[in-house]
Amino acid sequence: MNSKRDFISIDDFSNEEIEVLFVIADKMNLLLHRSHGVLAGHLMGSLFLEPSTRTRLSFEAAMNRLGGRVITMSDAAASSFSKGESLADSVRIVSSYTDILVLRHPHAGAARLAAEYAPVPVINAGDGGHEHPTQTLCDLYALRQTKGKLDGLRVIIYGDLKYGRTTHSLALALARFGTDVLCIAEPGLNLPTYVRNRLTAMEGISEHSLVVADENSVFSGEEREALLYTKNPQGWQLSDNALKLAGIAFDAIYVTRLQRERLAQDDADLGQALPPIDARFLSHGSFQDAVVLHPLPRVDEIDHEIDGDPRSFYFRQAALGVPVRMALISFLLGHEMMRVERAPKRDEREWKKASCANPNCVMTKEGDYLQQKIWKDPQERVHCVFCDEMLD
Amino acid sequence: MNSKRDFISIDDFSNEEIEVLFVIADKMNLLLHRSHGVLAGHLMGSLFLEPSTRTRLSFEAAMNRLGGRVITMSDAAASSFSKGESLADSVRIVSSYTDILVLRHPHAGAARLAAEYAPVPVINAGDGGHEHPTQTLCDLYALRQTKGKLDGLRVIIYGDLKYGRTTHSLALALARFGTDVLCIAEPGLNLPTYVRNRLTAMEGISEHSLVVADENSVFSGEEREALLYTKNPQGWQLSDNALKLAGIAFDAIYVTRLQRERLAQDDADLGQALPPIDARFLSHGSFQDAVVLHPLPRVDEIDHEIDGDPRSFYFRQAALGVPVRMALISFLLGHEMMRVERAPKRDEREWKKASCANPNCVMTKEGDYLQQKIWKDPQERVHCVFCDEMLD
Amino acid sequence: MNSKRDFISIDDFSNEEIEVLFVIADKMNLLLHRSHGVLAGHLMGSLFLEPSTRTRLSFEAAMNRLGGRVITMSDAAASSFSKGESLADSVRIVSSYTDILVLRHPHAGAARLAAEYAPVPVINAGDGGHEHPTQTLCDLYALRQTKGKLDGLRVIIYGDLKYGRTTHSLALALARFGTDVLCIAEPGLNLPTYVRNRLTAMEGISEHSLVVADENSVFSGEEREALLYTKNPQGWQLSDNALKLAGIAFDAIYVTRLQRERLAQDDADLGQALPPIDARFLSHGSFQDAVVLHPLPRVDEIDHEIDGDPRSFYFRQAALGVPVRMALISFLLGHEMMRVERAPKRDEREWKKASCANPNCVMTKEGDYLQQKIWKDPQERVHCVFCDEMLD
Repeated sequence: MNSKRDFISIDDFSNEEIEVLFVIADKMNLLLHRSHGVLAGHLMGSLFLEPSTRTRLSFEAAMNRLGGRVITMSDAAASSFSKGESLADSVRIVSSYTDILVLRHPHAGAARLAAEYAPVPVINAGDGGHEHPTQTLCDLYALRQTKGKLDGLRVIIYGDLKYGRTTHSLALALARFGTDVLCIAEPGLNLPTYVRNRLTAMEGISEHSLVVADENSVFSGEEREALLYTKNPQGWQLSDNALKLAGIAFDAIYVTRLQRERLAQDDADLGQALPPIDARFLSHGSFQDAVVLHPLPRVDEIDHEIDGDPRSFYFRQAALGVPVRMALISFLLGHEMMRVERAPKRDEREWKKASCANPNCVMTKEGDYLQQKIWKDPQERVHCVFCDEMLD
Repeated sequence: MNSKRDFISIDDFSNEEIEVLFVIADKMNLLLHRSHGVLAGHLMGSLFLEPSTRTRLSFEAAMNRLGGRVITMSDAAASSFSKGESLADSVRIVSSYTDILVLRHPHAGAARLAAEYAPVPVINAGDGGHEHPTQTLCDLYALRQTKGKLDGLRVIIYGDLKYGRTTHSLALALARFGTDVLCIAEPGLNLPTYVRNRLTAMEGISEHSLVVADENSVFSGEEREALLYTKNPQGWQLSDNALKLAGIAFDAIYVTRLQRERLAQDDADLGQALPPIDARFLSHGSFQDAVVLHPLPRVDEIDHEIDGDPRSFYFRQAALGVPVRMALISFLLGHEMMRVERAPKRDEREWKKASCANPNCVMTKEGDYLQQKIWKDPQERVHCVFCDEMLD
Repeated sequence: MNSKRDFISIDDFSNEEIEVLFVIADKMNLLLHRSHGVLAGHLMGSLFLEPSTRTRLSFEAAMNRLGGRVITMSDAAASSFSKGESLADSVRIVSSYTDILVLRHPHAGAARLAAEYAPVPVINAGDGGHEHPTQTLCDLYALRQTKGKLDGLRVIIYGDLKYGRTTHSLALALARFGTDVLCIAEPGLNLPTYVRNRLTAMEGISEHSLVVADENSVFSGEEREALLYTKNPQGWQLSDNALKLAGIAFDAIYVTRLQRERLAQDDADLGQALPPIDARFLSHGSFQDAVVLHPLPRVDEIDHEIDGDPRSFYFRQAALGVPVRMALISFLLGHEMMRVERAPKRDEREWKKASCANPNCVMTKEGDYLQQKIWKDPQERVHCVFCDEMLD
């Protein structure tokens, strides 16, 4: 039986596993320069069929820090690689050269497919607009580094919450750990429905559609619509679904840039309306102890003037991507053990009634040899195993 | 005197050397993860001036598995590298940084030229339509892995035998080892004349132009023309140059894809007419013990339905490329010795009477500083030392 | 306090430091294959945002020879990397993964900027038309290898001295070491004014605008204009600013190619008029002991016929780039100490009166967050800290 572990979705790890992983990452962080013998003789395949320099370099730094080696295929065009070959074949070939495979791919579900065909562990380094789970690990780890824990916190997620893929996984992960999440989005760019559904399906979590009052002109003199996810609405002193920031202390603001390259035609009239995070913003009493996080690259949603502020943690957050990925690679290659409860496996089964209709799903793209499989959510709705979209 | 060895053509190694190399590869295969100290301190230059991801990654995996290091130049356009520089200069510079050079280049004979100018061993990773000898090593090694030997076998080479460069070297190498080769090609895409001439020039080998009868509809109800190369025609029970498959047991079918990107204008009417290798095909009694090989990537000439068949060896064949290349690199760097008879050296000499007319030959491309050299075959015909084409 | 050392300009090292560096390089050259444990556990970021294969491979070879590891970003287009991100941010992120950063960038001053924002040592591998100081180190080292010293020599710099960036740094460095420099340029392509000014500002050095007489037809029967920089004009037997080569023995000729890709529109009528260095040229008595150097790639300014001449040192010069860069990396990472006088630090200060007007300066490109800083030369002229151009 194939007992290998992959890391395709943040849901592949239980909260307990994530916490143990972070203890390993703490150790890696201390040993950055002295860990280079651990994975000697091991080889990573770094397969980036969509540009993503920062993520690729972070993975390759991690493997090298561990003493392992890397072979790299990094090409803007997946097509030039394939020569008409199926993704399954490409994955089988490259993974047969290596001990672990890191895959970035433009199609949703590509990493799940790869995990099925590769005999070695597969890490999802981003699959289209679907998941980018190691970014979420890094985001969580940065928050834990600054706040010492991941539960009972109050976090604002700020910016483009529609196309900013990292915000989706982060909102879900924070809610899982028991942290309250306030989503303040650019107009028209709030969380997509499927994320909202998954959040409200969690035990005890309620959604509150709010208006955030603009005391002290934090929001340039305008009220802002927001979504709050919490197990403890009383703690927020809501009245008539209006939230006054005053009196609420936030632990972190997670800022994202407008994903201009992903904006659809009908989003074209959406501008950047939220004010940037700057010194004036951070001077508000609610943010006295709030660290500022950002998955980077930033454009201008965080003002350069606060780069030196002790609450600005985004650059150190990027640096922490290396020890987190070191921990993940070590674990998947069997060099670190976790004796905690694993995440439950999804109940997957074959499905002949319908096929995934998501045009960017790997099932649609590679359907000539792939078998449609599904999993059911607690509401018995049927989801594509690859891209997680619902099948009708 | 320069006693370095290069690997430019499969003819650079004798049968005995290839057999010893495969014994080394067996050892490498066992030690994949524990061999990482062998070439510590050694550096490979991986110079791919034409895209070839699989081959490049396989070489780089091999060097890393051995503990050596790799520096890589991988660019679709040779021109962007050269800045008007001669290939000889490029090779001199990069090889001066490294201990061994792997070269992929669009021009025939480029690796031979590189071997002349580099002070370190050079491996040909494909030079235009000319040779790709490490692929042939891998093909032979895969066959030997499954059949235990390379002589006295019966092998079908199937598909595009005109533009499928790997089929040329393989046919020649198999004949050298004493294995019978049956060439079944797409219409109009059989072996080119120069390969046929070299095959029939071998001692004891005769060519038979055949019609393969289509019992059991193996070939979609049509008879197929084929070429047979054998030292023992009686063993094939030919009658009137018709071959009945029934009663003949094959050891392997080597399948290649149609090289659509290389089809010339006047080949445009050639379609893919041979049936794909599928379960029905393999159910024929002649193929009961026939392994299926393919240099990959495959498109649709092998049906996905047989991927799980124990005779389907093409993915393991790809994986074996790593230990074979480990063995080759170790040998060329002097870390493995072979005390067997070497391949005879070609008698090369300068030639002022004429210059190579092959428009893709490196002699034509770099002729302003290169000296034309030739070698003579047993019929005293004069061949270009670089691309092996005949000079008139 | 940040006590890290960077290497952005050849002026960052004193003559004494360069001499010690070359002693380290001598050692590295002897230990090429046995030095692989020295920097084990160290990681280099190789960030090439402008194509430069030879320089990149040389740096990566050096780091690998030392046992360190490399992560590489090599892209023709800086833009595809940045996604609108500032260079400061890119540098902060990548340098946070690594122990040392090597940067090639199209904008003048980019490496200086990087050094300000990176917590790790930064090496300038070429910043637009500004500096390429490791090339200068290699040029000096090659000259010292052949002549045993760097002072009291007579060196011709030959070819495109306007756009050939390496000639600028070399002329300045040679003058600093006390070597006389004779600049013979293609018509219209002599040293730019700012280099001439810096040369003549050096203590004791005078500039002589000359005509080189063409005895023995060294210059195809034409007289050539030239510039001579020397502390000892009497040694050159000048009469009426005419120089007769006869009787003057040169130690080296440093040849550069015409930088056709940098020629401005109004340079279009400038052809290559200087004769190539060939056997006839070298047969002149003045060049009996003159080594021929070239930063490579060469096009046709050195004839292939002299490649085998013992005075032709350009290929060995390229190879020496590896031990020189090994020495530099080892020193910057603190594994080699230099107990000699350091180069004086430039007196840098903020400057609000004006901003750099050089359109290719990183100050102009990244001005929305950068602060203009300046340094003053002995004449109290104000220079941009990044691109060194004068501010009006």
